[in-house]
Amino acid sequence: MFSGLCAFPLTPLHQQNFDEKAFIRILARLTDAGVDSLGILGSTGSYAYLSREQRRRVVQVAKAHAGSIPMMVGVGAIATNEVLRLVEDAQEAGADALLLPMMSYQPLSAEEIFAFYEEVCRHVSVPVCLYDNPRTTHVMLADELQGRIAALPAIASIKIPGLSAPQASERVAALRQHLPSRVTLGVSGDAWATAGLQAGCEAWYSVCGGLFPRCSLALVRAIRSGDVAQTAALNEQLAPLWRCFDRYGGSLRVIASAAAMLGLCDPDSLPRPLLSLGEEACREVASALRGLA
Amino acid sequence: MFSGLCAFPLTPLHQQNFDEKAFIRILARLTDAGVDSLGILGSTGSYAYLSREQRRRVVQVAKAHAGSIPMMVGVGAIATNEVLRLVEDAQEAGADALLLPMMSYQPLSAEEIFAFYEEVCRHVSVPVCLYDNPRTTHVMLADELQGRIAALPAIASIKIPGLSAPQASERVAALRQHLPSRVTLGVSGDAWATAGLQAGCEAWYSVCGGLFPRCSLALVRAIRSGDVAQTAALNEQLAPLWRCFDRYGGSLRVIASAAAMLGLCDPDSLPRPLLSLGEEACREVASALRGLA
Repeated sequence: MFSGLCAFPLTPLHQQNFDEKAFIRILARLTDAGVDSLGILGSTGSYAYLSREQRRRVVQVAKAHAGSIPMMVGVGAIATNEVLRLVEDAQEAGADALLLPMMSYQPLSAEEIFAFYEEVCRHVSVPVCLYDNPRTTHVMLADELQGRIAALPAIASIKIPGLSAPQASERVAALRQHLPSRVTLGVSGDAWATAGLQAGCEAWYSVCGGLFPRCSLALVRAIRSGDVAQTAALNEQLAPLWRCFDRYGGSLRVIASAAAMLGLCDPDSLPRPLLSLGEEACREVASALRGLA
Repeated sequence: MFSGLCAFPLTPLHQQNFDEKAFIRILARLTDAGVDSLGILGSTGSYAYLSREQRRRVVQVAKAHAGSIPMMVGVGAIATNEVLRLVEDAQEAGADALLLPMMSYQPLSAEEIFAFYEEVCRHVSVPVCLYDNPRTTHVMLADELQGRIAALPAIASIKIPGLSAPQASERVAALRQHLPSRVTLGVSGDAWATAGLQAGCEAWYSVCGGLFPRCSLALVRAIRSGDVAQTAALNEQLAPLWRCFDRYGGSLRVIASAAAMLGLCDPDSLPRPLLSLGEEACREVASALRGLA
């Protein structure tokens, strides 16, 4: 399940509570389109803002609606004890894989980071994807440290930050030198999907795919088949959305607005302290959505 | 309670559970010495790593042993809903004030930060200290934004990061321009206490004071009375400890080691993923402790 399009849906809220109906509507778009896998409770799924009880319910609902599509579940938390509780919950609810970031409060040493992954991996019964996302977690993982972690038998993939085109191939090659061959790489940061996949990443861990699975799948297929014209056309179609991500503090608030515009969830579906986009930003998002599916 | 020495004790663990007996031993040092106030569940108190239930118990135990010394309680969390629950718990358990950081996962806008403080302050019944600690929270609070937040009637103080001596007076003066006169400033970052207090901060929000209250109180008094020789002597005595903070990833791991050396808690009292210091670091800490009380 660590290749192709892994779609990361929102966890929409209604008055700050989990909005199950809206979540099911979003999931249906992904299962109907036939994404390769689901990434439940990723950053787009607001894992960091949800209680243990909320997360357990999100995974249960996702499992009930995922059909045969495998499901990876984010289990990040600042305290190791809490991560272990979330691992247990996710596995009990039917997670096929876990997405594991290293969250931080006190700055951490490489030894502490490695010991954390080692301990959690001792307690898992499904494969684990290492989640490298310094923008949100503020943890920098050197390539060598990623290599040490990836040598743990449970590790199956690494979700890496976006790579701009000129450096992407070098970057992927440099990182791969540290990794066992069984460990796949997946690019995140939607605007860099094409560069990442062309540089040899096996997966696209995709926010865009969590709401627009059909164009995202079409993009993966165009890249895979070497269809340069179709790749360029799809990138052009998606570019206004990605410009919104860049302009409005990342993808989450933009995708939440887009989902509301599609009638899938409330206009205010984000967990506080996050606020929904204002009117002007919403107009730009609305215009970026034209033609996306 | 927002002036003088506010002592921030560890929350020691035993096998990853709250070690009540060790916590009571540490508190007794602080009440015996007569610190001006207590800062329970600050960064040194590992608030970010403890569950709601653990934090509630920590505050209850602190209240039972604080005597007449006022007690500020940290209520930080990533989700606003969780902060509101922690506020309720802390107030029910007898907190005299709250210490409120803006924790982040998704990078936040100034509007989101202000709206967060506004919402939480609407729900509090005790004064609030704004906690500015970008090293751990990764939230940068511009002076103007701190001014907007400080204008909320509940805000009584700001815990600011350490200030090096040459810039401290300018820095404090610049920030004060944005603040109502009722709002005090408290310096954190122990190595900068003297510079901060000499620059006019009313409080020292002190890690050092959470384990070595007598030298910390002596330092505050020496600065207040303008005793230059005694200030210099105390700074010299404390300097080796502060060098350890600088060398070993901040104050927390060093103070936890020091507390263990004093027989107050386990050698391994930190919440995972944090690890206790290794042998070599412990030798340096041991040597830094000579003569401290």
